[in-house]
Amino acid sequence: MSDLLCPPSALPVVADAMRLLELVREAPPLTHCITNAVVTGFTANVLLAVGAAPAMVDIVGESELFAGIATGVLINLGTPTPEQRAAGLEAAAGATAAGTPWVLDPVAIGALPVRTAHAQSLVEQRPTAIRGNASEILALAGLSAGGRGVDATDSPDAAAEAALLLATRYGSVVAVSGPVDLITDGERTYRVANGDELLTRVTGGGCALGAVMAAFLGAAHGRRISPLTAVTAATLFYTVTAERAAARSTGPGSFAVAFLDELAATTPADLSGAARVADAGAHVTEVAS
Amino acid sequence: MSDLLCPPSALPVVADAMRLLELVREAPPLTHCITNAVVTGFTANVLLAVGAAPAMVDIVGESELFAGIATGVLINLGTPTPEQRAAGLEAAAGATAAGTPWVLDPVAIGALPVRTAHAQSLVEQRPTAIRGNASEILALAGLSAGGRGVDATDSPDAAAEAALLLATRYGSVVAVSGPVDLITDGERTYRVANGDELLTRVTGGGCALGAVMAAFLGAAHGRRISPLTAVTAATLFYTVTAERAAARSTGPGSFAVAFLDELAATTPADLSGAARVADAGAHVTEVAS
Amino acid sequence: MSDLLCPPSALPVVADAMRLLELVREAPPLTHCITNAVVTGFTANVLLAVGAAPAMVDIVGESELFAGIATGVLINLGTPTPEQRAAGLEAAAGATAAGTPWVLDPVAIGALPVRTAHAQSLVEQRPTAIRGNASEILALAGLSAGGRGVDATDSPDAAAEAALLLATRYGSVVAVSGPVDLITDGERTYRVANGDELLTRVTGGGCALGAVMAAFLGAAHGRRISPLTAVTAATLFYTVTAERAAARSTGPGSFAVAFLDELAATTPADLSGAARVADAGAHVTEVAS
Repeated sequence: MSDLLCPPSALPVVADAMRLLELVREAPPLTHCITNAVVTGFTANVLLAVGAAPAMVDIVGESELFAGIATGVLINLGTPTPEQRAAGLEAAAGATAAGTPWVLDPVAIGALPVRTAHAQSLVEQRPTAIRGNASEILALAGLSAGGRGVDATDSPDAAAEAALLLATRYGSVVAVSGPVDLITDGERTYRVANGDELLTRVTGGGCALGAVMAAFLGAAHGRRISPLTAVTAATLFYTVTAERAAARSTGPGSFAVAFLDELAATTPADLSGAARVADAGAHVTEVAS
Repeated sequence: MSDLLCPPSALPVVADAMRLLELVREAPPLTHCITNAVVTGFTANVLLAVGAAPAMVDIVGESELFAGIATGVLINLGTPTPEQRAAGLEAAAGATAAGTPWVLDPVAIGALPVRTAHAQSLVEQRPTAIRGNASEILALAGLSAGGRGVDATDSPDAAAEAALLLATRYGSVVAVSGPVDLITDGERTYRVANGDELLTRVTGGGCALGAVMAAFLGAAHGRRISPLTAVTAATLFYTVTAERAAARSTGPGSFAVAFLDELAATTPADLSGAARVADAGAHVTEVAS
Repeated sequence: MSDLLCPPSALPVVADAMRLLELVREAPPLTHCITNAVVTGFTANVLLAVGAAPAMVDIVGESELFAGIATGVLINLGTPTPEQRAAGLEAAAGATAAGTPWVLDPVAIGALPVRTAHAQSLVEQRPTAIRGNASEILALAGLSAGGRGVDATDSPDAAAEAALLLATRYGSVVAVSGPVDLITDGERTYRVANGDELLTRVTGGGCALGAVMAAFLGAAHGRRISPLTAVTAATLFYTVTAERAAARSTGPGSFAVAFLDELAATTPADLSGAARVADAGAHVTEVAS
């Protein structure tokens, strides 16, 4: 991406990311997660390390109420039991009613029918942000049958068109993870080249990023920082931190431990110094909504 | 708490804690946990490290039976699905019928209606011990609307009155966690000043303590060691160990790893050497039951 | 077992294990796990470290379909909610229809009635492999009332007869874990003496081995490598790696971290150099089916 790359620290989004990291640590955003059984502990630990306050409230009768109390909400479809599906619909309604920003992570949709239908119901409620790998974003946009599970079998570039389509159709920020992450609101697109392959060797490496996005969106909300900036800032912080953790790791086990340590330690200056982000500029959406 | 502090190693409760730690390691107490999806793995690892035998039996049709086989039971309300709520009521009935000591951890009650009603049903069955942060204890006693989630937004001192009230009303030992933990049976109150802030940066830091209390209560049961002593001993052991782990950690990730190592390594002599516990003496309960 | 021990590296099963490890890393087998809430994150991390692709698809309406897409399936009964029980039956049917190898891990059956009945339904569908401790294997064979939970209270030798009976009756490979693991298909029996006691101090130490067996069975399937060889290879790789991890650990917390690192690092040559496996030779089954 060298052709796209301005000196990254000069980009306003990097300064915004530094500011958001400070805001999260000053006033821990209460981050409401309905997430899958595999990653729920890791996700809570990531949020605690970042400085946010996690709360996994995923039962019927509490999720709608709590989405109004929380500052940000994540709905992740990794293991969508009937109870979680009903609670997820409650949470989306509660977040919408209260104006709480919320993130949809449509894990492994496409080939799997129950979660695919559920993701469709949720996306119609216009999430603030959508996060997924290329296969999931393509499937959500109706452009692919999806991957074979949680793996991305398509590249982020192939999903760029789908991301623009979803962003335009639902008014959402769409983040496509991959070796280079793509984040767009349909009008402006960022690409983030930070990260480390070890993030893909720890379960929840992607899922917990969705929770950090919800935390950053909560901190940005009401401070005139756009959702596009908040999602890009969360991605930058998360992937820069992954690089720092990888540098002191000897495998996926020690990486996960170092990652939590570094999430608590990375400073705004560290973030600025390591950010590799490109602003593709404003562009005309070329896809029909 | 210097005004309250006898030379701690002279306190009988410290000697009892040393003895209970030995008993747990000699004959692993089978500890039955119905706990939340976020912390279930960490809780089992804490129990295994301590030397106990964890068993997470949280389905209808098995919980009541198993509460009679186990030596101690934990019922934690962090993610109370309908299945877990029904299994929790079964387990409380089974424990009561068999005389098995059991611990109630009313996570995040107050603002959240489903778990608040469930906690009320359970506490009426007179748990051997109740463990929570200040907001949860106040809410369970009906003295507060509760916190905004799992955070304590009230101080342990503010909860002291609520703890006495609950202890008197239900015949339970009540433990309020905070920078200084308070443990009372309504007649005698201990304060434990050990611990480390990193325990609050690891998900399950509080929840797993409830499981260790159930393990220590199991070991104490039938040996003429009171529930008040067992709960205080568990708290002492757990928080002293947290200090040892913090001393070799570089953040919340490495702390969690070191904590498990130290739970297996801390000796009775280590415990005695580091304990900071105060006996407030016998007191007249000043609250109406 | 010195009387049984050929120079282990000369055994064909060791060469097969080396080859299977390479195959798993070259083409990550998509491993479908329906497993318990306590160990689901650790299991996914173990599979990722090994080089496999985990997918925890445990809901009704998706499990049968996904068992046909996956290369191997694990059904573990640790926390069998009604949803998981129905999804498990779906997965067994889907695996059987598609010819996908599948592993049954009947956690803590015997004393607990719901999972015991469920295990009976599943075993009738003739799993490719059955993995358990001695108490669980005895209970599944109807020769014992089972242990007091997840602990083995019987020795692997006591379970040898039960293992042969199950292998003969259901056409399954049966693996009994213990200080020396026993693996039989009813016609040939291997004993694996590798491993470390620390594996029993980490929750999921046994459960995740079932998932690795499913991954190795998937890689072996269609390559004329027998299920007996695949299950033995998985056990060898897993337990040799545990020894390597234990050598650099200071307790159960650091062991779990080192274990994940080493699962990613152990080479086929490391495996060959450390294997302690005995081939008891072909034998006549002495139990009635």
